Amino acid sequence: MSHPANGLDEVVHQRVRLGILAVLAEAKHADFRYLKETLQLTDGNLSSHLQVLEDAGCAMVDKSFEGRKPRTKVRITKRGRLAFEDEIARLRDIVVRFEKSGRSG
Amino acid sequence: MSHPANGLDEVVHQRVRLGILAVLAEAKHADFRYLKETLQLTDGNLSSHLQVLEDAGCAMVDKSFEGRKPRTKVRITKRGRLAFEDEIARLRDIVVRFEKSGRSG
Repeated sequence: MSHPANGLDEVVHQRVRLGILAVLAEAKHADFRYLKETLQLTDGNLSSHLQVLEDAGCAMVDKSFEGRKPRTKVRITKRGRLAFEDEIARLRDIVVRFEKSGRSG
Repeated sequence: MSHPANGLDEVVHQRVRLGILAVLAEAKHADFRYLKETLQLTDGNLSSHLQVLEDAGCAMVDKSFEGRKPRTKVRITKRGRLAFEDEIARLRDIVVRFEKSGRSG
């Protein structure tokens, strides 16, 4: 007997990374600054989680300049989108399973 | 602007602990062995996550003997149930938000 929680992937499920992917899945790409503010993260925290997502092939980080201003743009990859959709399907299973079980019991 | 992922609580959201609480929320209590098999965990892994849940007041572990056999029973606490219900509500928000955003885009 297997439980829907068993298949969760730590790369995508981890709280901060789930937030990053959720924003990117909605917006396709986002500035570092926007992600940081939306998810209420420090620079260091966001950077380290982006590194994990990049290493797993789930996100791409492009650093460039706009005039003299450095700009960091983050995009979700095809693999990242599939992994996020898989996570959403598993979360839905967990939610539905709990709701079916009768929560007041 | 705040994102539903911001409010996720690491104690409850972490993959293994989410699984433990999901099983306990459904069954109210469970044997160590049953949790271990259902969630496909090692003894050490299950023990350390139960410790985190106990420390947070979300679960209680009772060790006893049934004849000569040691038996470890795990129960969800009121606080654990509330924390799990809060997590489920947040997961539902994330799922609904993603589904509304149009996944094929």
